[in-house]
Amino acid sequence: MSKLDTGKYIELFRTELYENVLPFWLEHSLDREYGGYFNCLDREGRVYDTTKHMWLQCRQVWMFSRLYNALEKRNSWLEAARSGVDFIRKYGCGSNGRVYFSLSREGRPVFIQRKIFAECFYIMALDEYSRAVGDLELKKEALALFEKVLTWKDDPAALGRPVLSGQPAVSSLAVPMIILWVADQLAEGEKDAPFKELMEKSTAEMLLHARHDKKIVLENVAPDGSLLEGCLGRLINPGHAIEAGWFLLERARKTGNHELGEAAISIIEWPFEKGWDPEHGGIFYFMDSEGAPPFQLEWFMKLWWPHCEALYALLLAWHETGDQRFADWFEQVADYAMSRFRDPVHGEWFGYLNREGNPTHTLKGGAYKGCFHVPRFLLLCIKLLEKIC
Amino acid sequence: MSKLDTGKYIELFRTELYENVLPFWLEHSLDREYGGYFNCLDREGRVYDTTKHMWLQCRQVWMFSRLYNALEKRNSWLEAARSGVDFIRKYGCGSNGRVYFSLSREGRPVFIQRKIFAECFYIMALDEYSRAVGDLELKKEALALFEKVLTWKDDPAALGRPVLSGQPAVSSLAVPMIILWVADQLAEGEKDAPFKELMEKSTAEMLLHARHDKKIVLENVAPDGSLLEGCLGRLINPGHAIEAGWFLLERARKTGNHELGEAAISIIEWPFEKGWDPEHGGIFYFMDSEGAPPFQLEWFMKLWWPHCEALYALLLAWHETGDQRFADWFEQVADYAMSRFRDPVHGEWFGYLNREGNPTHTLKGGAYKGCFHVPRFLLLCIKLLEKIC
Repeated sequence: MSKLDTGKYIELFRTELYENVLPFWLEHSLDREYGGYFNCLDREGRVYDTTKHMWLQCRQVWMFSRLYNALEKRNSWLEAARSGVDFIRKYGCGSNGRVYFSLSREGRPVFIQRKIFAECFYIMALDEYSRAVGDLELKKEALALFEKVLTWKDDPAALGRPVLSGQPAVSSLAVPMIILWVADQLAEGEKDAPFKELMEKSTAEMLLHARHDKKIVLENVAPDGSLLEGCLGRLINPGHAIEAGWFLLERARKTGNHELGEAAISIIEWPFEKGWDPEHGGIFYFMDSEGAPPFQLEWFMKLWWPHCEALYALLLAWHETGDQRFADWFEQVADYAMSRFRDPVHGEWFGYLNREGNPTHTLKGGAYKGCFHVPRFLLLCIKLLEKIC
Repeated sequence: MSKLDTGKYIELFRTELYENVLPFWLEHSLDREYGGYFNCLDREGRVYDTTKHMWLQCRQVWMFSRLYNALEKRNSWLEAARSGVDFIRKYGCGSNGRVYFSLSREGRPVFIQRKIFAECFYIMALDEYSRAVGDLELKKEALALFEKVLTWKDDPAALGRPVLSGQPAVSSLAVPMIILWVADQLAEGEKDAPFKELMEKSTAEMLLHARHDKKIVLENVAPDGSLLEGCLGRLINPGHAIEAGWFLLERARKTGNHELGEAAISIIEWPFEKGWDPEHGGIFYFMDSEGAPPFQLEWFMKLWWPHCEALYALLLAWHETGDQRFADWFEQVADYAMSRFRDPVHGEWFGYLNREGNPTHTLKGGAYKGCFHVPRFLLLCIKLLEKIC
């Protein structure tokens, strides 16, 4: 095995999780009046908007339940999870089972997306919490909703999306990724190994996004894996691809699929090499595979979550391959992230930096940032590092 | 009257319009095979995506028709407009009259928004072109669609937007603005002065967004003008407010409403003073009225269009008031825009700069930038400056 000071990182990440990240959310996010979480928090943890975004309500339930299940049986973590699970079950779903995107502070529905992601995070939350408290009814609820999601995911009309004749048929990387993630969650520890076929299908769909000829991972391809025209077909989201890479690498480890493991390593390596800004450091948010101007105004920004995903992915890739490059890249990203994103004054991490690596936003929580990516990567890295040591 | 070298700017803007801006679109945007316009053009004018975005198809029809009607009877301008009008009439609308947001190159529908803006730009295009060619049938089509838009604008369900109990009732500045603009266009030169009441109502709605106590203009308020909670209620888009200001100032001039004129001057002055970046220059894209972190990742960027709107608004405000501050601000924005946005090498303007004023995107046309804001402000300024001289 090549060199990485694993002891240093266990210590660093444990301190970060226990002293800098979790206290921020436990102190500032719990809504003790209405339940659920305030997820729009400024640098110091003050609530600047009381909207409750369901992605983040559900992810926070999952996160505290997971910490409780995997790291330590802390009552404060279970209590934090319970406050969220009660809230989302009471207010999160419409009559047809669709999960809202956002609620008012008291739980009245504000917005619903024409996508399946809120539902998937809801399932994750119920399932992980059910393991924490041993409530099999919650697991059944999660499974029942997943059955619905599997029909909705290929049926735009069911989600309220108009079907128009000029729309190309698209396989979006995000969909098989989240299906794989949810199926893997629901199957964890189950004796009859459910969803095996579904996970194989999702894995195969994800692999279609990796283009060996150009060493790139595309966000969108045709369902048969062929290239799509225009910006849609050239879009690269390096952090998202790297996340897909570690999902696949974990799948490969669980199934002992060596070939999948090799493909997964490439899906971590290629987007990292392409996505790292050679001039200012950090991982770009979006890129065009041919260098055309990306539609996304924020393409050049450095966001916290691609760096969280990269840290775990690179550590896992190093563990699997022993290749020193991955250890070096891991240290490079850790240095960047801990010096640029981490807020040593008020806890948690900044979410959004300009290309040069300076914060453009001081928020700690917003419509898409909450108690999730930072503690998840810390937990994953701590568990893996402890295993290695 | 205070000092402004009007002759210099007539010359500068005429040269810019005739030599730097219009040639770019005439040379690169016309799709001679399928009609309509390529609106995704890179720095040099190469097509990087063949999607045809209806906002930009319609705005380009309007723009070339307007140039033909107001500036010079150039055949190439009328031909350019005709190519667009044929395309949008053939492919732009669904069976219910709704106008798509985007089409494939050949005209097949790709996406439809749950908003009325595509319809409004379509009406503008038909009306202005109908004036250029004297085709009253087109005007009738425009009027018929406007009648539909007026029912749709207050009926989210008709636009396919779910109505949820937690949604606050919102008056969004963009809606009365575009209704006023379209109504004014349709009424132009008509003997019976139609839409008078509608324009008065839209004007009154727009004025509710100006908060005299704090000297700010808010994007979203409650229908009675009271403040809305959270980020939604604190959102400021300085360039958009400034655009609203000149819409209102023109309305005040046309109706001889002195009180409205004074209000309009404030609606130009306040957002300009608040929106100008004291550190790096340029107008911020989004702000929070209380300084909380804006949700929009791109809040700190400098976009071309707010600067276009500000140039005409400040010139008009100077013309109306004689106040030297407006002339000075006009020169300040002109210097910034001509040195930062203008591309002296390949024509047209860059659309997107970082906070420091350097281009983040080299595109000249994309999903929201096309042949519109730059030539519109140049035309408006030229006409006003010529009147002053």
